[in-house]
Amino acid sequence: MPSYNAGVLGATGAVGQKFIRLLENHPWFTVKALGASERSAGKSYREAANWIESTPMPELAAGMKVRSCKAEEFKDVDFVFSGLDSSVATEIEGEFAKAGIPVISNAKNFRTDPTVPLLIPEVNPDHIELIREQNFTKDGSGWIVTNPNCVVVPLVTTLKPLHEAFGIKSVILTSMQAISGAGYPGVPSLDILGNVIPLIGGEESKIHEEPLKLLAELKDGKLIHTDFPVQATATRVPVINGHLLTVTVGFEKSADAAEAEKLMRDWESPIADLGLPSAPPKPIKVHDDERYPQPRLHADSEQGMQTAVGRVRNANVLDITYVAMAHNTVRGAAGGAILNAELLVKKGFIS
Amino acid sequence: MPSYNAGVLGATGAVGQKFIRLLENHPWFTVKALGASERSAGKSYREAANWIESTPMPELAAGMKVRSCKAEEFKDVDFVFSGLDSSVATEIEGEFAKAGIPVISNAKNFRTDPTVPLLIPEVNPDHIELIREQNFTKDGSGWIVTNPNCVVVPLVTTLKPLHEAFGIKSVILTSMQAISGAGYPGVPSLDILGNVIPLIGGEESKIHEEPLKLLAELKDGKLIHTDFPVQATATRVPVINGHLLTVTVGFEKSADAAEAEKLMRDWESPIADLGLPSAPPKPIKVHDDERYPQPRLHADSEQGMQTAVGRVRNANVLDITYVAMAHNTVRGAAGGAILNAELLVKKGFIS
Amino acid sequence: MPSYNAGVLGATGAVGQKFIRLLENHPWFTVKALGASERSAGKSYREAANWIESTPMPELAAGMKVRSCKAEEFKDVDFVFSGLDSSVATEIEGEFAKAGIPVISNAKNFRTDPTVPLLIPEVNPDHIELIREQNFTKDGSGWIVTNPNCVVVPLVTTLKPLHEAFGIKSVILTSMQAISGAGYPGVPSLDILGNVIPLIGGEESKIHEEPLKLLAELKDGKLIHTDFPVQATATRVPVINGHLLTVTVGFEKSADAAEAEKLMRDWESPIADLGLPSAPPKPIKVHDDERYPQPRLHADSEQGMQTAVGRVRNANVLDITYVAMAHNTVRGAAGGAILNAELLVKKGFIS
Amino acid sequence: MPSYNAGVLGATGAVGQKFIRLLENHPWFTVKALGASERSAGKSYREAANWIESTPMPELAAGMKVRSCKAEEFKDVDFVFSGLDSSVATEIEGEFAKAGIPVISNAKNFRTDPTVPLLIPEVNPDHIELIREQNFTKDGSGWIVTNPNCVVVPLVTTLKPLHEAFGIKSVILTSMQAISGAGYPGVPSLDILGNVIPLIGGEESKIHEEPLKLLAELKDGKLIHTDFPVQATATRVPVINGHLLTVTVGFEKSADAAEAEKLMRDWESPIADLGLPSAPPKPIKVHDDERYPQPRLHADSEQGMQTAVGRVRNANVLDITYVAMAHNTVRGAAGGAILNAELLVKKGFIS
Repeated sequence: MPSYNAGVLGATGAVGQKFIRLLENHPWFTVKALGASERSAGKSYREAANWIESTPMPELAAGMKVRSCKAEEFKDVDFVFSGLDSSVATEIEGEFAKAGIPVISNAKNFRTDPTVPLLIPEVNPDHIELIREQNFTKDGSGWIVTNPNCVVVPLVTTLKPLHEAFGIKSVILTSMQAISGAGYPGVPSLDILGNVIPLIGGEESKIHEEPLKLLAELKDGKLIHTDFPVQATATRVPVINGHLLTVTVGFEKSADAAEAEKLMRDWESPIADLGLPSAPPKPIKVHDDERYPQPRLHADSEQGMQTAVGRVRNANVLDITYVAMAHNTVRGAAGGAILNAELLVKKGFIS
Repeated sequence: MPSYNAGVLGATGAVGQKFIRLLENHPWFTVKALGASERSAGKSYREAANWIESTPMPELAAGMKVRSCKAEEFKDVDFVFSGLDSSVATEIEGEFAKAGIPVISNAKNFRTDPTVPLLIPEVNPDHIELIREQNFTKDGSGWIVTNPNCVVVPLVTTLKPLHEAFGIKSVILTSMQAISGAGYPGVPSLDILGNVIPLIGGEESKIHEEPLKLLAELKDGKLIHTDFPVQATATRVPVINGHLLTVTVGFEKSADAAEAEKLMRDWESPIADLGLPSAPPKPIKVHDDERYPQPRLHADSEQGMQTAVGRVRNANVLDITYVAMAHNTVRGAAGGAILNAELLVKKGFIS
Repeated sequence: MPSYNAGVLGATGAVGQKFIRLLENHPWFTVKALGASERSAGKSYREAANWIESTPMPELAAGMKVRSCKAEEFKDVDFVFSGLDSSVATEIEGEFAKAGIPVISNAKNFRTDPTVPLLIPEVNPDHIELIREQNFTKDGSGWIVTNPNCVVVPLVTTLKPLHEAFGIKSVILTSMQAISGAGYPGVPSLDILGNVIPLIGGEESKIHEEPLKLLAELKDGKLIHTDFPVQATATRVPVINGHLLTVTVGFEKSADAAEAEKLMRDWESPIADLGLPSAPPKPIKVHDDERYPQPRLHADSEQGMQTAVGRVRNANVLDITYVAMAHNTVRGAAGGAILNAELLVKKGFIS
Repeated sequence: MPSYNAGVLGATGAVGQKFIRLLENHPWFTVKALGASERSAGKSYREAANWIESTPMPELAAGMKVRSCKAEEFKDVDFVFSGLDSSVATEIEGEFAKAGIPVISNAKNFRTDPTVPLLIPEVNPDHIELIREQNFTKDGSGWIVTNPNCVVVPLVTTLKPLHEAFGIKSVILTSMQAISGAGYPGVPSLDILGNVIPLIGGEESKIHEEPLKLLAELKDGKLIHTDFPVQATATRVPVINGHLLTVTVGFEKSADAAEAEKLMRDWESPIADLGLPSAPPKPIKVHDDERYPQPRLHADSEQGMQTAVGRVRNANVLDITYVAMAHNTVRGAAGGAILNAELLVKKGFIS
């Protein structure tokens, strides 16, 4: 079994904590180093972190001394996961990559870089070849891979089989997003208790753009983005975990809801046979019960790594409409990044 | 000032209670009679009703003896409001109309009847002329008027000025609906606390069809329905009052968001000068703050009778997209019916 | 390893569903038979139950045909768990016991019967000897054992070591109870969203009385109840799982909070060495963080079987005060009953 | 009618906003000046404040230029309300008093000062005479009056008639406190949604001590504190407004629940005849319905100024037990301070 030492950057934040929790019993990866801001550096993780996960802080992490997010302090790891805030991610992640330390990042900063893979293993595993186009280091030892926005993950996971079969022409969606997506302290309770907020700053442009890169074709070391319009309204709802999307899609070819549902139901991911520990048995579960999926009931399905779909039906406008949902901080953030790392190991990029 | 005696059918239910609360200090209407099921008939209203409003039960109503929902027991009223359940509304409302008692109903049963006005006073006040086509009684003394579904009210209120100016071509919307819309006991807390339910049974077909009647043209005593496709996904969220809608609209004519927003902002309702007590000063309020409208903050604006709009912007798919919100049990139910009654008084149908 | 066939009575209700979920992978017990009302009997469990658990319905149960709750239909089980409603539990549980089928019940009906053990394995395991005093059958093959009210479990679990050391003189408590305690559909969302209800009908008398039986001394086949006054106020809060209690206690002997906390922290349960699969490693966890325990964070600790304690401090009135919390439908209901069954197996009462 | 110009210190904070909202249509007081931190000073209030009230920001306030909290900038007001944070209240309030500007404060800083009245007009109106003992200014023109902690208000309002009749011997209470009590942004939603937090830092000591000053006897210009032990556990619940208390009380004299309830029900406040605009008709409302009071239903009763009581019953420990509730940011904060100002006007201290 592969065995690697991993670092976690931004370890005291909400995403960093999720990395540490999900990696606690990971069969391949051992958390060896934790990085945070200067304010935390030097303290034990137990002192530095205001632990917000519902399971106890892993003992291994609790006793570690937090390091500064400097590459020279992370020479003992094979790669790092980054849960860094976007205000510092560009600089720090770039510095790590230049120092020859692979960075598997949840931050948005490098997602639009044309040589940085924006990766969902079930959707575009071939994009990891882009790594070879990066030149952070001469020998290719340092590089960056990113995972998409937490709404984009269930969106593109469900669009992928439809796009292959029918060609996506246009997409309109509304997201109802969980509060955990805003980190901690995040959304004030006075804003969201018994309420809906119809705006999440900066979210919609990511939902409009990231799908086009994820569904791009890789040709001669370059991504040729696909091109269809996406119109999103991102809202916040009083839910702990799980972003729910209502999606209406127009196709290039003629197709109906029954065909679309069957495609999603039967879809076998291209990584199904790789034995990646965090990969769900099936990337999509289609619910038959019209009341499903629901975030509180289904966000944790398959350790939070499965996208749930329901209510696939013909639409009066465009072609079909359906509901999709995925765990935003697992599948849509730390868990997605860990699955990326597993694929990168299997493909020989981490060694 | 006009002065009329009103009855309330279905008085112990959630909508019935809202009628009683809203009518408590109404300048024109006095609640004179309360009707409910045989189980409640004969008891005082205080005993019969499990009062769920947050203000105390009005003393006047509390002391009334509840009657059976039979027309012969309501000879002392000028008209009745109906908050009847749809399982009994067809029969009872029909019986009242035949007995010469006007029925102003919140039930869905007669909404699709071609001679029954489906009425939003600001949108289609001329439709009340349809009453003359009804033949419940020979002398025209008994008739039925209905108000639309609670999602349709803010939807069509905002579509109306756009339709007049640009012609609606297609509509896609997602509704996030408050729990009060399901009545009492309604939605179990175990289903909705910290959750979203992506289905409200029977709701979407009303949202697809009612706008076409509301925006119909009345010609020679007949409604010529307008015709455009509407695609709705109706969801339930943990909010007490206020249905929030994300709406994307395509137009017949070329138009952009700035024009659309200006139209909604400037729209003067055709009933503005009638002095109806429950009419809001402006039917639509356009919020400048992108975080608005929010159900908890704005559902009660203008006594719950105003539709709030925000985030009007150009859409990547279809033409424009925006957020709309209205109080579902006031503007979208009992309050809307009371405004209907006020218009009917002013137009001479109630006398 | 022991291996027994179990039935579940009241299988379609909330407690019945929890039994089925918790028994899905139980190492000793296999669910063999499901009983419910006549309305459900004959249907498959998949059809009969409105499944409300967040994990999928176990396939084994889903395919079972639901039986009537008649002893003659349960001849193929070694014993039954009862999640029956109290309106029918007296008759049905009695009939099963008389037919020689042991009943391990969560219903309240037999809790006050002087020959029926009211059992928390860590607190009063010796009380199971009371079974020998029951005379449902001549050969002792049929009997009933009950578990306490869901507030009483964390209350008495924490009082037990204090009572042994100092003698409880009086107890004042307030419970903040989760909505899952009311079953399904249970508490209407309109009642509890953003609210607290300061009354749970019938709850407080159980909290006043059951501790005195649980802490009773068994002498010559009879329970000599302990005697101290308990004053409870039971409230409902918008929490999914986990009842939180604020408890203030007066002692017979002089003692302070530090001593009390140490006792709770160090308490070794008398069943620690029996290897019962559902027994938590320690019955009580004392949290050092003053903000803990919290129901959403800690209800699931140790598979929902551990009582959490925090804020043990000297009180200005009486002697000490603290906060306790346990999962109401696991430790306080189905999980507690399963642990009872495990103890009864180990002690030879089930064979 | 009296007419005064008032300033508001800490005007951009949650309490400051509540002052501005409640004073919008006050018959006696006009908001003339708004003070906030240096960061806000010089901006218009519209720009400076992140308005969190559900009614629109009053136009008058919106257009005002925010001032620094310096006495010299407030020469045009007759007195100031203070919603200052405790980190700055000692210095700023003291400076205003020394400059001859009366301060009516919601901050805790001067509550324990032996010459500063801690005032609930219905409970201890005579304590305002203490003002004469203050020596902020030689001519007595500058002074400070405070209102109590938001839990203490409903607690002492209900204890007052009981104390007069029976003598309070001891009190045990649990508070379930609304999130609005923590200000804005206040409690993170991830902490409190679907949860209870069993600690509110710094709250319990106020609940233990303030009642003893409020029920003190004023003799020769000095307060002789009453003396009984109070034991409180302060918890946070997911409620917007309204602190609910479960209170158990022991008396010096023998008394039962029926007598206590009658006393609370009949209690006429000593300020009943003064015509204070913010005084509720009765300071206490005793609910007959055992399910009441509930914060969401009753916090706004009598414009949020009335304390609601329910479930008065004999206790198994101590003497009686009951539930009390009041609006924490109205009666328990800004509204209480405004009522204090009204009393001070009536008694001639403000002129």
